[in-house]
Amino acid sequence: MKPYTPGEQPPPGKFIKLNTNENPYPPPAAVVDAIRSAATGPLNRYPDPVATSFRRAAAEALGLPGPEWILAGNGSDEILTLLVRGFVGEGERLRLPYPSYILYRTLADIQGAAWEQTPFVDDWKLPAAFGQSADDLKLVLLPNPNSPSGTIVSPEQITEIASTLTCPLVVDEAYADFAQQNCIDLVQSCDNILITRTLSKSYGLAGIRFGFLIAKPEVIAELGKIKDSYNCDAISIAAATAAMHSQDWLADVVTKMNLTRERLTAELAELGFRVTPSHANFVWCQHPSGRHAEIYEYLKRNQILIRYMDFPDWGDGLRISIGTDEQIDACLLMISRAIQSFA
Amino acid sequence: MKPYTPGEQPPPGKFIKLNTNENPYPPPAAVVDAIRSAATGPLNRYPDPVATSFRRAAAEALGLPGPEWILAGNGSDEILTLLVRGFVGEGERLRLPYPSYILYRTLADIQGAAWEQTPFVDDWKLPAAFGQSADDLKLVLLPNPNSPSGTIVSPEQITEIASTLTCPLVVDEAYADFAQQNCIDLVQSCDNILITRTLSKSYGLAGIRFGFLIAKPEVIAELGKIKDSYNCDAISIAAATAAMHSQDWLADVVTKMNLTRERLTAELAELGFRVTPSHANFVWCQHPSGRHAEIYEYLKRNQILIRYMDFPDWGDGLRISIGTDEQIDACLLMISRAIQSFA
Repeated sequence: MKPYTPGEQPPPGKFIKLNTNENPYPPPAAVVDAIRSAATGPLNRYPDPVATSFRRAAAEALGLPGPEWILAGNGSDEILTLLVRGFVGEGERLRLPYPSYILYRTLADIQGAAWEQTPFVDDWKLPAAFGQSADDLKLVLLPNPNSPSGTIVSPEQITEIASTLTCPLVVDEAYADFAQQNCIDLVQSCDNILITRTLSKSYGLAGIRFGFLIAKPEVIAELGKIKDSYNCDAISIAAATAAMHSQDWLADVVTKMNLTRERLTAELAELGFRVTPSHANFVWCQHPSGRHAEIYEYLKRNQILIRYMDFPDWGDGLRISIGTDEQIDACLLMISRAIQSFA
Repeated sequence: MKPYTPGEQPPPGKFIKLNTNENPYPPPAAVVDAIRSAATGPLNRYPDPVATSFRRAAAEALGLPGPEWILAGNGSDEILTLLVRGFVGEGERLRLPYPSYILYRTLADIQGAAWEQTPFVDDWKLPAAFGQSADDLKLVLLPNPNSPSGTIVSPEQITEIASTLTCPLVVDEAYADFAQQNCIDLVQSCDNILITRTLSKSYGLAGIRFGFLIAKPEVIAELGKIKDSYNCDAISIAAATAAMHSQDWLADVVTKMNLTRERLTAELAELGFRVTPSHANFVWCQHPSGRHAEIYEYLKRNQILIRYMDFPDWGDGLRISIGTDEQIDACLLMISRAIQSFA
């Protein structure tokens, strides 16, 4: 089995990291305070097995009926693992779009399950086939916004897809805070729509590993039975709770990063790239020269990490995470030099 | 499926908690410092996926050849889940002794696998049957010291059992720091012995969720492929690293708790209990009246939580975690009152 390979993690400080869609800004000060305070809490005791304080804060922040609609996890990675374990048996099947987040395939492989990919059509739209049911199809996963494209499928189309499926449709909203639309309301109105979220991207907390599932209370209760009893630690719970109470901070950082994204999009277009309009904290771009691997290598030699991605039968390109304005300036300068070096 | 039910977790402060084998003492000051320092670290970045600093410190503290012999996990719960997922397929089987840690059965149930129990004989000794191979037997799990008994099986007998098995034998050493013997050396000398450890008990860090596996580097590498990419968070890694550097603190706290254990053992015997000599941070005891459930309820009404455990076809009894001397005094007083109330 081929394991999932996340983006490179160089020693800190040496590189400008624009390759794993981390937030370039530190988390809210309230989170740091919460961690420092939890450090002197009862760490010798087991943590709250169901992260009650976090779930209350998240339900309030997101306008959900109550904490029973939320399952907290050790990163949305753990939530996705639980979903695959809970819904897809050995020999059964899950579906994902293509090109998309290949971790889902690894999760199926680990489970001894199968996966199938439905290609996006017409510049990142979903064909009706994505909503086609099948006896052995037990789970459909849709990152929205999608990676690597940063594109979104509308809540209306997602409702339509869910209505033709006989299995759960998981909308992975890791990047939804950077978009204008999301599917949170659909969890209450559609029987088979579930949503995953993470604090790794918009909240600047990739280091604490915290993600969550939004689903009907009966689904939350069933999946709660297969998680590890104490899956979230006391300090992460305190940090994540403080993060959910920092909605003003979130609005500010998202506004700032989306402005940087629009500038990056415009300047890449100036450099001749075809840039896919993004609703996430990264952009996907392709250069008419097709020399994406070389641009990636050129930047890496100059201590800037972006992501080179090659999707078989589809094509390759570059995914650039939104950094600070200074980091993006440095990246753009180096890209222009790389392109000049081809001339 | 019946989920695993851990010991009760009342609101903090109200109860004397002697029911989940937590350490009554706070963790080393170096751990608190490490957490406070990590709070202002790069939390917006993903953590080290393989917890290098922790594994180096643990290898040094335990006299292992190097960090490649260690896999870090989000509690030994996660390590046990990985072992069951990695070695036992749907429809295959794992083995555990009886009475013992019933979480292993839940892990088999979640995996769609079967489990079988081999009863201890002659006061917590293992029969040769525990080492008998079978085609569909893929994993054998042995808590050592065992829970609820606190008893140990010698490294010599464990070597013998492993030699007749054709599958891995996992020795769960959650409580080994409180014992005089452990099996760490066997990982290098026996091909199929693996060890799990946790920081929840002896290091007073149940709240941070950190456990680890000790195994041959090739086993570590294979299991590393099925774990979540970033399974341990940055703060827990910092805390766990500092804990492994606190071996003097560990020796002191273990000495202190083992003295309390010997006193509790003697005083329970004075009260008429049959107490199993323990090598862990708890004791298992049975009263000739057989009224264990009533003693448990009496204590609970008086804000003291211990564990009442009833093992079908075997019997019931009380498991009391080692608290501070004051907590144990309060517990003993209330037990003596409960017994008097029966007269």
